[in-house]
Amino acid sequence: MALGKGRLEAFSDGVIAIIITIMVLEMKVPHGDTIESLRPLIPVFMSYVLSFVYVGIYWNNHHHTMQIVRSVNGATLWANLHLLFWLSLVPFVTGWMGENHFAKWPVICYGVVLLMSGFAYNIWVKVLVRHHGDHSSIAQIYDGDWKGKLSMAIYAVAVTVSFFNSILGFVLYVVVAAIWFIPDRRIERKLTYPGNENEGR
Amino acid sequence: MALGKGRLEAFSDGVIAIIITIMVLEMKVPHGDTIESLRPLIPVFMSYVLSFVYVGIYWNNHHHTMQIVRSVNGATLWANLHLLFWLSLVPFVTGWMGENHFAKWPVICYGVVLLMSGFAYNIWVKVLVRHHGDHSSIAQIYDGDWKGKLSMAIYAVAVTVSFFNSILGFVLYVVVAAIWFIPDRRIERKLTYPGNENEGR
Amino acid sequence: MALGKGRLEAFSDGVIAIIITIMVLEMKVPHGDTIESLRPLIPVFMSYVLSFVYVGIYWNNHHHTMQIVRSVNGATLWANLHLLFWLSLVPFVTGWMGENHFAKWPVICYGVVLLMSGFAYNIWVKVLVRHHGDHSSIAQIYDGDWKGKLSMAIYAVAVTVSFFNSILGFVLYVVVAAIWFIPDRRIERKLTYPGNENEGR
Amino acid sequence: MALGKGRLEAFSDGVIAIIITIMVLEMKVPHGDTIESLRPLIPVFMSYVLSFVYVGIYWNNHHHTMQIVRSVNGATLWANLHLLFWLSLVPFVTGWMGENHFAKWPVICYGVVLLMSGFAYNIWVKVLVRHHGDHSSIAQIYDGDWKGKLSMAIYAVAVTVSFFNSILGFVLYVVVAAIWFIPDRRIERKLTYPGNENEGR
Repeated sequence: MALGKGRLEAFSDGVIAIIITIMVLEMKVPHGDTIESLRPLIPVFMSYVLSFVYVGIYWNNHHHTMQIVRSVNGATLWANLHLLFWLSLVPFVTGWMGENHFAKWPVICYGVVLLMSGFAYNIWVKVLVRHHGDHSSIAQIYDGDWKGKLSMAIYAVAVTVSFFNSILGFVLYVVVAAIWFIPDRRIERKLTYPGNENEGR
Repeated sequence: MALGKGRLEAFSDGVIAIIITIMVLEMKVPHGDTIESLRPLIPVFMSYVLSFVYVGIYWNNHHHTMQIVRSVNGATLWANLHLLFWLSLVPFVTGWMGENHFAKWPVICYGVVLLMSGFAYNIWVKVLVRHHGDHSSIAQIYDGDWKGKLSMAIYAVAVTVSFFNSILGFVLYVVVAAIWFIPDRRIERKLTYPGNENEGR
Repeated sequence: MALGKGRLEAFSDGVIAIIITIMVLEMKVPHGDTIESLRPLIPVFMSYVLSFVYVGIYWNNHHHTMQIVRSVNGATLWANLHLLFWLSLVPFVTGWMGENHFAKWPVICYGVVLLMSGFAYNIWVKVLVRHHGDHSSIAQIYDGDWKGKLSMAIYAVAVTVSFFNSILGFVLYVVVAAIWFIPDRRIERKLTYPGNENEGR
Repeated sequence: MALGKGRLEAFSDGVIAIIITIMVLEMKVPHGDTIESLRPLIPVFMSYVLSFVYVGIYWNNHHHTMQIVRSVNGATLWANLHLLFWLSLVPFVTGWMGENHFAKWPVICYGVVLLMSGFAYNIWVKVLVRHHGDHSSIAQIYDGDWKGKLSMAIYAVAVTVSFFNSILGFVLYVVVAAIWFIPDRRIERKLTYPGNENEGR
């Protein structure tokens, strides 16, 4: 029933690497050669930085979690593809939000994609926990995941707030990114436990 | 005569990861910032979701099959490239079908690419079976592959039907995707047999 | 002095996977929804198929050669990047040749890129041979490499001929691809020698 | 506290492979089929060659350094993403510089991206040194890193000079690339020391 985890990691690395890199293609080379010709790109650049950090956070958390995963099954593959699907929409909403200078609907849609990515990540974790059992390391680590729950709550607030003030919504997305910027010490600590030989590749 | 399988997996992962991700580039960022400006993208988005699922299915089946493959040879490399070639046309027909709101010829061509990808997958399996022998695990698993045969038949019907009603053709493509959505339990079951140490990387 | 070969393979796989896949982006989705709207894409499609086969040949030969390589050094990394540089120009000349229906200059430039890629591959092999020694497997296999030399000669003829008849030049490129289509049995045979444990990853 | 280094390498390989390859997409296929229609692409091509070499240098140094790294931690992941962020801006400034024939502001911005990438690389090394300790191989190798410091100084001079003569600035970027073209023999030498079993993957 259990499959090796190496290719799931490799495929996810590939997709996430492409997502994080093609976003920069939304920053179209300006036609002028003056410093002013860069000015319209400032909101696009800001969106790019935020999304780069978000995709980086997902990659970091994916990496940390896969370190303690022992094997995967068919359901995991689909839960993983589901997560990658929502992340693959990030370049689209990033470009739309940046080109429209953080207007209402693009900011709302950006938040919806963050919210759905968060849901997809939670489903992915649940599938992994079910595969490994309730007493596994992964179950213990994600038990009472306040950071995940807090993020989802802030996303929901940010989406609602954006109907009235989309800049405030954008600020809230930055706040969540800042919360996650600190890597997941729960898992790093776990990895120091004796008996863990699941490292490397 | 036998080559290691690691790089075949890595290269296929890379190509499939790129195919699945560049499809999203066909969803061009709209110029307006209203929710209405997303409406013309709905058929493009629907095509994207379907193709994401299809490419995901191919990756899943490729992954499952490679788990029980012991080594590859020169013929396998070309059969694999042939499969990747047809899959690489998926972003093109996806964009064409979506932008033309499921018109006749784009839906037909989409089905032809699915049909050719299915043929290419069958050839790839046959080459692997010939390399491993008729009594190998891979030969047993793909013996009497009703799911593969059924899919090919439905594709053929869908392409024919699309000459008269392309929406119905599209619905049939969705049906095949649904059939495959369930991961290939035949191989997962096989992997629990004793003596299989072919996992991981 | 010797470095592990794993990352050289992984990086080359990544670059070659991207090259082979972004070529399809040159096949722009047509605006019409009729079968006639695909007609102008036929030469682009033919160029794409030829280049897909060429890049596939390079990947296959790279794969086969790296199987018998034991380690790499700094010079190998640069020789490898030099090879990838010329291959990275393939999508550009492919698109140019296809969009101009095999006109004189695009066909000539396509041949020049093939010629330079061939040179770069030869340099890469020479660097690997110098690193492994004259009595290594890799030196023996590439000793008197008639296929490589023949290809270079045909490329040179094809480029010259294209000044007068570019369709003939294109046909000669197809001939070289056909010669290489057969995988490099010299190395596959080598790999069956006893004492080779360099397989897999 | 320590994580395996395999996925950090794989993800970095993926991102760097994409960066180095999508730059070629800035070389738009010309509409004409004459050799003259390539002329406007010459500065774009020159920018592409320079950036290809720079990204190649970063990949080579990343590869060499990771060879002697034993494990990574959360801080390393972020320092690595920070480095990849600045490198991801290289295609943008490459395209802008090439299309504007080495005009003042694009050349300045290109230099700023090089400078920031250099800073990011230094931070990445410092984080690795702190993780491995002051007596580790990596600390010894990067102790008194004259090549890194010289490059940063030349970048700063080149950016300043470009305000008056941007061609001279471009020449200085070429000079730094030439300095780094020679692979980092310090690490290759280190790898011959007895007791190093950290090679391969």
